[in-house]
Amino acid sequence: MYTLVVIRHGESEWNKKNLFCGWTDVELSDKGMKEASEAGRLLKKEGLSFDCCFTSVLKRAIHTAYRILDEMDLVWIPVIKDYHLNERHYGALQGLNKTETADKYGEKQVLLWRRSYDVRPPALSEDDPRNPVNQAPYQKMKGKVALPLSECLKDTVGRVAPYFDEVIRPRMEAGDRVLIAAHGNSIRALRKHLEGISDKEIAGMNIPTGIPLVYHLNSDFTVHDVSYLGDQEAIQAKINAVKNQSACSVKK
Amino acid sequence: MYTLVVIRHGESEWNKKNLFCGWTDVELSDKGMKEASEAGRLLKKEGLSFDCCFTSVLKRAIHTAYRILDEMDLVWIPVIKDYHLNERHYGALQGLNKTETADKYGEKQVLLWRRSYDVRPPALSEDDPRNPVNQAPYQKMKGKVALPLSECLKDTVGRVAPYFDEVIRPRMEAGDRVLIAAHGNSIRALRKHLEGISDKEIAGMNIPTGIPLVYHLNSDFTVHDVSYLGDQEAIQAKINAVKNQSACSVKK
Repeated sequence: MYTLVVIRHGESEWNKKNLFCGWTDVELSDKGMKEASEAGRLLKKEGLSFDCCFTSVLKRAIHTAYRILDEMDLVWIPVIKDYHLNERHYGALQGLNKTETADKYGEKQVLLWRRSYDVRPPALSEDDPRNPVNQAPYQKMKGKVALPLSECLKDTVGRVAPYFDEVIRPRMEAGDRVLIAAHGNSIRALRKHLEGISDKEIAGMNIPTGIPLVYHLNSDFTVHDVSYLGDQEAIQAKINAVKNQSACSVKK
Repeated sequence: MYTLVVIRHGESEWNKKNLFCGWTDVELSDKGMKEASEAGRLLKKEGLSFDCCFTSVLKRAIHTAYRILDEMDLVWIPVIKDYHLNERHYGALQGLNKTETADKYGEKQVLLWRRSYDVRPPALSEDDPRNPVNQAPYQKMKGKVALPLSECLKDTVGRVAPYFDEVIRPRMEAGDRVLIAAHGNSIRALRKHLEGISDKEIAGMNIPTGIPLVYHLNSDFTVHDVSYLGDQEAIQAKINAVKNQSACSVKK
């Protein structure tokens, strides 16, 4: 039996500003930093510990991991940063205001981009500075892997699931207790992969920020049980807030 | 030609308290955190950048690295933590007050432990909780490598030099620009190795906290030039402060 803990980064500066974020490397807000530290204290209190941590190459997830490990006195464990755990790439929408985008393209279209499983937002052009091949963290992958110009959730599953199977799972099988600090959509992708959630259901699932999701997995990596750690009522309120935030941000 | 930057962690909580530290995992002081951030700003201003960072498994060095990378917007680069870059192990002196130790063993003996090349301080007993095999970060090495119960500077050279040659150097040869965030004695060890400094001279060399040491190395890893980055007068004052602190701490 394996224990795996997955956590979405705390609130970011752009969550507050209502902008499409994706691979934009935005910092945690003060509230987000506090959420991360609180998660670390909770994990420690519950007697959980880790041997290594996986995260994306985006600082809001990395700093969430660092703050958790600070609180748990696990600063020394390896932290592996990999773009396979990045947020879904939001294409040409990245940096745009969600309300303005709804005004421009229509609410229905924006909801489709945000909550469908396999519809990609408009792609970046090759020469866009937001194209990953034009950004420092992805220079080494240039020409070796196909970096996205836009992704639907299905695309994100297509990179998260093999990364879990090929990199994270062997580490767990070797005995490491793993923490994954990632993003709303890379966690959706992982949940779909581990729990076998349907395309329709996963697109409507909301992941709260800064709440540890604890898996107990059987030896064949099927899910024995999975639950959020902490006060269940408060967590449900947080999930609803994410859900309402998504709706409001388009409507307001 | 290779560029390599080496930096000693900022002031720690125990530097302030005048305690023998070694492998004790002590946090940076507020001043130490500021020193680290300042070093990051300086490196950025000078146009330096890095592809990966090596540090010890001790949080005062790891947090120094993190703060530098925060300032340089390089949060995403790999940070490899390895005990080979730890501070010299101070054996049974770890946690003791330097002045009290001088009162107990005599100033001459303490100076010998602190500033000789090949005299080890008293060793920890096997069952001491400070023995690395009894501490979380070293559990995986148990039975695989010989972890120290006490080290002289020569011992520290004996682990830092091969680690540089076998792990860091190949990474540089593959094209990575490397930052090393480490400790007074692991940096002494590295300087001895790279610059061919004599046993006597290296034991008397003081490494200032939080000042980037920039190497330009030839293709065969001989040193082309090496210098501290920043205001040279202020750096010299800082080196003297480290020197005087060492002397004072025994005498006062």
